[in-house]
Amino acid sequence: MSRPPGRKQENYKISRELFVLTYGALVAQLCKDYEKDEDVNTCLDRMGYGIGVRLIDDFLAHSAVKKCRSYSETADMIAQVAFKMYLGVTPSVRCSSAAGNEFSLILDKNPLVDFVEELPAERASLCYCNLLCGVIRGALEMVHLAAEVTFLQDRLKGDAVTEIGITFLRKAEDRKHKRN
Amino acid sequence: MSRPPGRKQENYKISRELFVLTYGALVAQLCKDYEKDEDVNTCLDRMGYGIGVRLIDDFLAHSAVKKCRSYSETADMIAQVAFKMYLGVTPSVRCSSAAGNEFSLILDKNPLVDFVEELPAERASLCYCNLLCGVIRGALEMVHLAAEVTFLQDRLKGDAVTEIGITFLRKAEDRKHKRN
Repeated sequence: MSRPPGRKQENYKISRELFVLTYGALVAQLCKDYEKDEDVNTCLDRMGYGIGVRLIDDFLAHSAVKKCRSYSETADMIAQVAFKMYLGVTPSVRCSSAAGNEFSLILDKNPLVDFVEELPAERASLCYCNLLCGVIRGALEMVHLAAEVTFLQDRLKGDAVTEIGITFLRKAEDRKHKRN
Repeated sequence: MSRPPGRKQENYKISRELFVLTYGALVAQLCKDYEKDEDVNTCLDRMGYGIGVRLIDDFLAHSAVKKCRSYSETADMIAQVAFKMYLGVTPSVRCSSAAGNEFSLILDKNPLVDFVEELPAERASLCYCNLLCGVIRGALEMVHLAAEVTFLQDRLKGDAVTEIGITFLRKAEDRKHKRN
């Protein structure tokens, strides 16, 4: 199930509603498959990772972005270009560490949960949108940036906003270079 | 997990690539869950039905279409308005029965299979896009039209085109009316 190299891609858009409902069907299926929320979250993250690894080519081909020179630029690129391109929303970005490698993407509204009122009581630990974390992690890895990506706040769980935390993991060679 | 009535919906678009890859993850998960292709097909159709039942409100709200007065008009509406709105493509429509209740939607290209090269040999009976049949069936049922919707041809299986067959099931009262 792989795409042959060089096939022309057309970048037309589809309706968000169909995507949101299809994503809901995916999460519901995983909730049937796995009893523990943690297993569903892990599975969504893993699926997202696979998607991110493939989506990065599409992103680079269609965004015409230049190479980012800092973690800060990378975080802005994810929020302002990638989120806009793929989900039609632009999260705000906040740097959340003095070291400059931790960022938050803050979504006032999350397009993926448009048809979701609240999580059922028995699914209180579900990270409904965890696929997104995996997508970001997978795409970053393909441009040689290791990162941890997790939900820090979630409006579905009663938080005021939805917040995705991205922690860029400094490379061993960076650390070595700094010591010298 | 239901949407509160009256919430304003914004109809912005998302990238097809993210949808296509997410749909692929859903199909892959079902292939893990069910050994038999027929069970995967049934599950996709059932999921699609649930999506169609919910999507119809969105369709009626955003398409501003008038009530269709014939099966032929309904088939055209599905192809020219619904497919265009949700998937960005417009299948051609062919009436395939003298009785005027069987139609084919013919897709020269199927946006859902953009990243799919071919089905694995062990999944030869998989109707990869069967979700679409369920969506059409569910949406039609909500406007009081019973229909059977199935894939008749599939480029993934080596056919020249992808063809979705819609057979409108005449209502008991229609038949009674005709007899009188």
